[in-house]
Amino acid sequence: MIRTEDSYGYIVTRALRFTYPGSYKEDSDSVVTEEPLEIRILQDGKSQNIAVTMRTPVNDRELALGFLLTEGFIKSPKDVHHVECHRGSNAVTVALSDGLPPIKLNSRNFFMSSSCGVCGKSSINEIFIRGKGIIRRSATVDASIILSLPKKMMGSQNLFGITGGIHAAGIFDIKGNHIVTMEDVGRHNAVDKCIGYLFSHDLLEMGPFILQISGRGGFEILQKAAMAGFPIVSSISAPSSLAIDVAETFGITLACFVRKERFNVYAHPERIAQRPA
Amino acid sequence: MIRTEDSYGYIVTRALRFTYPGSYKEDSDSVVTEEPLEIRILQDGKSQNIAVTMRTPVNDRELALGFLLTEGFIKSPKDVHHVECHRGSNAVTVALSDGLPPIKLNSRNFFMSSSCGVCGKSSINEIFIRGKGIIRRSATVDASIILSLPKKMMGSQNLFGITGGIHAAGIFDIKGNHIVTMEDVGRHNAVDKCIGYLFSHDLLEMGPFILQISGRGGFEILQKAAMAGFPIVSSISAPSSLAIDVAETFGITLACFVRKERFNVYAHPERIAQRPA
Repeated sequence: MIRTEDSYGYIVTRALRFTYPGSYKEDSDSVVTEEPLEIRILQDGKSQNIAVTMRTPVNDRELALGFLLTEGFIKSPKDVHHVECHRGSNAVTVALSDGLPPIKLNSRNFFMSSSCGVCGKSSINEIFIRGKGIIRRSATVDASIILSLPKKMMGSQNLFGITGGIHAAGIFDIKGNHIVTMEDVGRHNAVDKCIGYLFSHDLLEMGPFILQISGRGGFEILQKAAMAGFPIVSSISAPSSLAIDVAETFGITLACFVRKERFNVYAHPERIAQRPA
Repeated sequence: MIRTEDSYGYIVTRALRFTYPGSYKEDSDSVVTEEPLEIRILQDGKSQNIAVTMRTPVNDRELALGFLLTEGFIKSPKDVHHVECHRGSNAVTVALSDGLPPIKLNSRNFFMSSSCGVCGKSSINEIFIRGKGIIRRSATVDASIILSLPKKMMGSQNLFGITGGIHAAGIFDIKGNHIVTMEDVGRHNAVDKCIGYLFSHDLLEMGPFILQISGRGGFEILQKAAMAGFPIVSSISAPSSLAIDVAETFGITLACFVRKERFNVYAHPERIAQRPA
């Protein structure tokens, strides 16, 4: 992937822009950076890891302080001696002032997620360790099918019309036939519910399937797609840098900004039919 | 709060609907349910907690299976003996088949967040324990100021225009003056960055401040607002049931679906000026 150096919270990457009915354009696009950040506390000479969060690497200092405050670890600026950002290693250390009661962590305090790892690369390695590896499934999907999915998924949602605000994920076959739609306040939960549905009906190996999501295509979603072996992920919104990395690494076709008559492909466009003439 | 029993993933709650320039209507609204779910594994007669996630209580079984698969704990339906949903206690137990290698958890495997707790009520109690308690700040904000915030915040965003997909949070005073805007791939991180900014400039106690967010008003965001002492939260999108509970409990005015000429208030409308004539 051709990329610029990131120092402003975004990278420039390749994107294939599709416009209905059959126009493709090789282009570049600016994509928000997503990288893990490890938040550490230094107290009485000892350093403890408090959390790892996936974030955009701008204002790490403010992020760490805000996180520690909202989790109740610090209360006033007097509690903080200094803050050190280790930008190269995606970590930030908040040194506490002398005289504060010692912070004891239990498992409840350790905020870790599937996105754990001290850099994007190690997060991707984790997927290799736990998952099935690269998705080599050959599948070809027509661009018009990709364009049809958001509307089909919305038509199958129950709670969106009632509440006006809930995420959804849907599973389709490569002909665009609808298999299942699940809804949840959490984007990742909606995806897990779809995968759990396929799993409990022993359908996961029956694909190839397309995963359609109502929100952004971030790391967490692509990680789940990689673990479930989905060759194609389609999102109505933007991708993140790390999501594109996962998609590229694991052989997933990633279509984003899927709107009425257009979408962009950020990884493995070879599965989309009607390549440029 | 008047509420229906929830069995379909949403509740019906009171909402005050405001339409510009000064029309208020007491109404009801359907809001998506958000509650924690504890995911447990039962293996060789021993039960282990694997994760707590905030979710909409529909398809818990699929959620647990999908989560365990995407985290690499199970691989095939043969790995699962049975699944038991303890709906009353917001927990689901996945009993593994005999003969599987024992699952050992380390701190990295325990997926906990600020949303921990086995029911919404205990999640709210956690905020009491760690935070400053109820926000009694008197503040009155004109409805027209609430309506002006989304546009002001978007005007102050750097990365949205470049990438087309990033969350933001902004801090305003009750006259609508802009203090700071922060952006991140994570909605919660954008809020933490704003709070960290106020904290490091020793401004947190200088409020009252309004927190404006680009996404939904969920539990996590309201929890952070409660910890930071913000009396007013404004969202362009939908609230969740538990977010409304936090707002009610901690004295936070919660305005959602803030659009060009209208918004809904789900908790503590007394801080919004121009009450019904």
